[in-house]
Amino acid sequence: MMNFKQLLLHVNARPFIDQARFGIEREGQRVDLAGNLAKTDHPAIFGDRSYHPYIQTDFSETQTEMITPVTDSIPELFQYLAAVYDVTARSIPKEEMIWPLSMPPALPEKDEEIIIAKLKNFEDVLYRRYLAKEYGKRKQMVSGIHFNFEFGDELLRTLFSHQEEFQDFSEFKTELYLKTARNFMRYRWMITYLFGASPMSEKNYFLDESHPQEPVRSIRNSALGYTNHPNVKVSYASMKQYLADIERMIEEGKLSEEKEFYTPLRFRGGKKVADLATTGVRYIELRNIDLNPYARLGINPEQVRFLQLFLMYMLWTEEKEDCDQWVAEGTTRNNKVALEQPSDQTEFHQEGREILEGMKQMLVELDWLDSLYLVEEALTQMDHPEQTLAAKLYQEAQLSSQQEVAVALGHQYYKESHERPYQLAGFREMELSTQIFMFDAIQKGVQVKVLDESDQFLRLQFQDHVEYVKNANMTSKDSYIVPLIMENKTVTKKVLKEAGFRVPGGAEFSSMEEAVKAYPRFAEQAFVIKPKSTNYGLGITIFKEGASLEDYQAGLAIAFREDSSVLVEEFMPGTEYRFFVIDGEVQAIMLRVPANVIGDSIRTVKELVEEKNSDPLRGTNHRAPLELIQLGELEQLMLKEQGLTIESVPQANQIVYLRENSNISTGGDSIDMTDEFSEAYKKIAVSAVEALGAKISGIDLIIPDKEIDPTTDKKAYGIIEANFNPAMHMHVYPFAGKGRRLTMNVLKLLYPEVF
Amino acid sequence: MMNFKQLLLHVNARPFIDQARFGIEREGQRVDLAGNLAKTDHPAIFGDRSYHPYIQTDFSETQTEMITPVTDSIPELFQYLAAVYDVTARSIPKEEMIWPLSMPPALPEKDEEIIIAKLKNFEDVLYRRYLAKEYGKRKQMVSGIHFNFEFGDELLRTLFSHQEEFQDFSEFKTELYLKTARNFMRYRWMITYLFGASPMSEKNYFLDESHPQEPVRSIRNSALGYTNHPNVKVSYASMKQYLADIERMIEEGKLSEEKEFYTPLRFRGGKKVADLATTGVRYIELRNIDLNPYARLGINPEQVRFLQLFLMYMLWTEEKEDCDQWVAEGTTRNNKVALEQPSDQTEFHQEGREILEGMKQMLVELDWLDSLYLVEEALTQMDHPEQTLAAKLYQEAQLSSQQEVAVALGHQYYKESHERPYQLAGFREMELSTQIFMFDAIQKGVQVKVLDESDQFLRLQFQDHVEYVKNANMTSKDSYIVPLIMENKTVTKKVLKEAGFRVPGGAEFSSMEEAVKAYPRFAEQAFVIKPKSTNYGLGITIFKEGASLEDYQAGLAIAFREDSSVLVEEFMPGTEYRFFVIDGEVQAIMLRVPANVIGDSIRTVKELVEEKNSDPLRGTNHRAPLELIQLGELEQLMLKEQGLTIESVPQANQIVYLRENSNISTGGDSIDMTDEFSEAYKKIAVSAVEALGAKISGIDLIIPDKEIDPTTDKKAYGIIEANFNPAMHMHVYPFAGKGRRLTMNVLKLLYPEVF
Repeated sequence: MMNFKQLLLHVNARPFIDQARFGIEREGQRVDLAGNLAKTDHPAIFGDRSYHPYIQTDFSETQTEMITPVTDSIPELFQYLAAVYDVTARSIPKEEMIWPLSMPPALPEKDEEIIIAKLKNFEDVLYRRYLAKEYGKRKQMVSGIHFNFEFGDELLRTLFSHQEEFQDFSEFKTELYLKTARNFMRYRWMITYLFGASPMSEKNYFLDESHPQEPVRSIRNSALGYTNHPNVKVSYASMKQYLADIERMIEEGKLSEEKEFYTPLRFRGGKKVADLATTGVRYIELRNIDLNPYARLGINPEQVRFLQLFLMYMLWTEEKEDCDQWVAEGTTRNNKVALEQPSDQTEFHQEGREILEGMKQMLVELDWLDSLYLVEEALTQMDHPEQTLAAKLYQEAQLSSQQEVAVALGHQYYKESHERPYQLAGFREMELSTQIFMFDAIQKGVQVKVLDESDQFLRLQFQDHVEYVKNANMTSKDSYIVPLIMENKTVTKKVLKEAGFRVPGGAEFSSMEEAVKAYPRFAEQAFVIKPKSTNYGLGITIFKEGASLEDYQAGLAIAFREDSSVLVEEFMPGTEYRFFVIDGEVQAIMLRVPANVIGDSIRTVKELVEEKNSDPLRGTNHRAPLELIQLGELEQLMLKEQGLTIESVPQANQIVYLRENSNISTGGDSIDMTDEFSEAYKKIAVSAVEALGAKISGIDLIIPDKEIDPTTDKKAYGIIEANFNPAMHMHVYPFAGKGRRLTMNVLKLLYPEVF
Repeated sequence: MMNFKQLLLHVNARPFIDQARFGIEREGQRVDLAGNLAKTDHPAIFGDRSYHPYIQTDFSETQTEMITPVTDSIPELFQYLAAVYDVTARSIPKEEMIWPLSMPPALPEKDEEIIIAKLKNFEDVLYRRYLAKEYGKRKQMVSGIHFNFEFGDELLRTLFSHQEEFQDFSEFKTELYLKTARNFMRYRWMITYLFGASPMSEKNYFLDESHPQEPVRSIRNSALGYTNHPNVKVSYASMKQYLADIERMIEEGKLSEEKEFYTPLRFRGGKKVADLATTGVRYIELRNIDLNPYARLGINPEQVRFLQLFLMYMLWTEEKEDCDQWVAEGTTRNNKVALEQPSDQTEFHQEGREILEGMKQMLVELDWLDSLYLVEEALTQMDHPEQTLAAKLYQEAQLSSQQEVAVALGHQYYKESHERPYQLAGFREMELSTQIFMFDAIQKGVQVKVLDESDQFLRLQFQDHVEYVKNANMTSKDSYIVPLIMENKTVTKKVLKEAGFRVPGGAEFSSMEEAVKAYPRFAEQAFVIKPKSTNYGLGITIFKEGASLEDYQAGLAIAFREDSSVLVEEFMPGTEYRFFVIDGEVQAIMLRVPANVIGDSIRTVKELVEEKNSDPLRGTNHRAPLELIQLGELEQLMLKEQGLTIESVPQANQIVYLRENSNISTGGDSIDMTDEFSEAYKKIAVSAVEALGAKISGIDLIIPDKEIDPTTDKKAYGIIEANFNPAMHMHVYPFAGKGRRLTMNVLKLLYPEVF
């Protein structure tokens, strides 16, 4: 027999020892806020269940299944699990939440009120009908975690390269996973002991059937849980034997098809079990993890790390020759442990301690010390059964009821998912627009992968269609030259002017002398002097009524300090609006108003600011759609100019501005005006963006009076600039007015086939 | 009558007084380097004459016509004229040049040897046959400048707004140009006097016809030049009269069609003369400018400015009531002046002085003082006829012959056009790749407009097809996301790896701690530490044989100083080659070699560097395809490490490197290797660029041995990075190997319809 322990100890394996791939499927019943099973269908907003990679239904229409992609690390696994959970929790009806327990809430008395998932594929429906008949609908209502695990490729290749028994890597892997599986089957009672969390059933779960003596450690993992009939027997001796046994069970009618083999550990290779003969084992799926009621996601990272260590120990530790006997013993012990009283010491306490001490020893030998604490914690739980999940849940339920505990936990998780609707759990370090865009992609079933978190770089995929997206607005739909045109104000103006749009007249100068020579052209009109390539208002001087030569020169000097090229332009009076155009349509129009408060004759400026800042939409560092209003030097100066201080009490309805600039980043208000504009203005914005060749752009129009018809008055608007990286989140969650889900428009532009 | 002088004096007109639009058509005979009329056809490289906007033929196949676009300033006019001239001069056969005189070189004795332009359109050919018959082929061989002039739109609108006679702007403009034209016809003898430069004919120009008493001021502008028969009489009294007269001339058979009306000043409106009735006059075309032999381009900016001032004076100064008489008097005077002996004082000296003094007065009243000197110079020439162009050319010809003078000037201009083939006259401030790209566009007849010179931003147009191009390689053919992918090394690697290409393995770290933890993964292998986003070699440490933990940490510290994200990557040994892919094909492969000289046992390092630097391909500041090799601190240090100084004499064939890095910008050599690589490597580069979604990219491959077959050896190559703004000029003009005209490939990608 292969000595895997020896291989794992090889020094060359050390750099890859913790390398692994992880995936999770987490089931959860949809319930109303009182904890009653939802009566609604799986929400149509998720699109078609025939392909959705993240959000599915399991047995019943109410049993949501949240699926992560395969990930290379535990943090990444939990990023996706959190994100998919958040999307699910916020996409189902407002009056629903995800039930936090493995055991379902009280079930309807009548079987027909438990609705089988309404899948398109009729075979899938037939299979569920068969299951309902064979095992009863109620057992199918139990939820849990399916945990997919794969040892790292470099780790396995290193182990492979230091042995001689196998010439074929795939065969080697299969052998490795077979050993892991046999020992897992033998010792899985430990997982039931530590992670079991289904101590009691709710109403109508057990009807007239045999009822366990509740509380137990895990109804779900007991012989009374959702498991094959005892006459289903499959050997783990070899892959050949395993596949032959499953085939035989089907022939003998003990299983309807291979996927009905509900082992706690499934081998995974190709699409079907039979494919394993050719693919070998590529990864394994653990199915015996109860939902952790105290983790919003149903499981936490420490549990996953412990499972990884446990599986490695299964590979590391010795096994017995007679493997069928070995596995059968495991089943016996597991079934006993599952039905033990959760606060009692387990019958196999001694073996439990030995396994855990063995794991400790392994970690020491592999120099994997930072995970030792997890085994120590498990040891504590081994000695203190009252600290296990099942015991804790049961104890808490004694104070009220399991139902009430579950509803309270559900409410808590509901709140956590809903309190910052503009953020996506797991990806909160990314820009808001990207978080919102990812939310939409996950909701619609477009696969999304973060290629670079700090660069907001995503890879999307739907079937074979791959797209890359940066900042949620930079896509393959725009051409390379478009942002370069927009980046250059002179070029933008030339292109727009040629296409017949009104842009500020003016000229570009690269020397003071040249610019001064042009003075007579501007002297008598309203104009603005600005550096060619700054965006932040630096170096800009506005002359609303012309200027003397001295003032003109002074303005130029200021601008030339910022850039070697300076623009002198006609000043266009009016209000600036941002028109957000996507794929030939204005999807949002926004007015940005400088930071301000409105008086009430009672509160001081400071108090009014505090109150305005308490809006959950306001935050700092672009982690919220609006920024907190500051009361710094600039704001106080602005107050002073109005004869106010932060302690002044403005009159009722008096608007007090705290900033001159209208940037959202300095506390400004974003006000959606999309429905306030006539089609004529929208048409101008759309055509201008089209003239620039862009699919996605935020174009800024100066409009003196939006009631004026721009088709008759040529001066009704002027175009200031077009932006190739326009912020989107402020439109989705504006300060006032209707939110506009621009991210969904972008997704639709990229994937019309999904909509 | 309108008082245009009063309008011009209005203060509101002042800012726009020098505003005008200009265009030039310059004819020139192709000759061999001995000055014989070329026997070759108009080069096929220019494509189809049916649309070429820049390079055409006039009457004969040898008579090239170079056409500028309409420009808004004189400097811009000369940019285009110089560029079109350069393109023409360098695109015709190496053994040909442009004849610098208006009068053609010696003509063949037999008429049939003067080849009429081989135009596609048969009507065009028929018209030329008619002209040959009506005027003789020889007169058609004279060349000159056609000067298109339009007063600035804002200037004209300002004048229009301060008068009341005309309600219609178009009618006002027509009236304005009519006055300008009548006075021009009256005083045009001045232009013949100042700019006339066709004093003598060459062999076989005049056969048995009447021969003037040579030298004269301008054969071309005399009654013996290419002019209508005297019975063609057209009135300038009004547009109606003018059009009616032309129509009558055609009806009476005195003209074959309207374009045969060879007036020195043509009105321009629509496509045909008759369109003027509806369009009004939009601009005027002067046709009486001889080629200035002393200007490579046939005319210089001072002449154009003088013409502008002269035309404005024609509008400013009074005219006589009887305008037909007035114009007729002008024709009489012009014909006299044209045939005067060029060194003699003109008969109309007094009138000439009065006009010029009047122009001075106008400039003073309009506060347009910086152009006064041009009028002063004209006054000097009025008093000193020997300083006029015709007199100077004649005097010089006395020392040898006009033929020899012309050939010498032709050679000088030939040299000026050819000495820096990588530059484009008129646009030398732009990047080389853009200059070369513009050359190609002009050659192929794709209209090119510089939208922003310092930003290398071009607008191209062919028929209705508009494209914008930046840096000659950023186009609409690439999508916005492509450069963003390439800009991010991590994303690039992920995309390439996923597509199955070999990229350096490794990881990205954002903290020292995290990176140190990964030490065992790299300790024993060749690897490199680099900041995620620097490109200039800063912060990079290479460990070719693994590293100790200390050295690893030191390398990390250096990298973290440059960026908050650091990559630790497998080091791939081999030679780096740049594969330049355009539209799915490798168009060039380049090896870059560090600055070096090769010894000859005689010269010192310093002398060898001097010799290598004398290559015209080497220059400074990217104004040449290669940079001068420096002998600064770094180079001397590098010599010292080899035990050398700049005074050492290296042995024959000893290669002495002066730099470690291979950048062209530090004196490196660019060596074209395109034909040295097998298709297999090219296929890898093409597929990798395709995987990144790019149409244009320079992708860098590390190749240990290019003779190894990459289809069998997986480690035959590794991809380092892909560039979205790859330099092109170094491929077009490499230090060694064949030049690859990548700019033409880009043009073809954008405009397949032209090729």
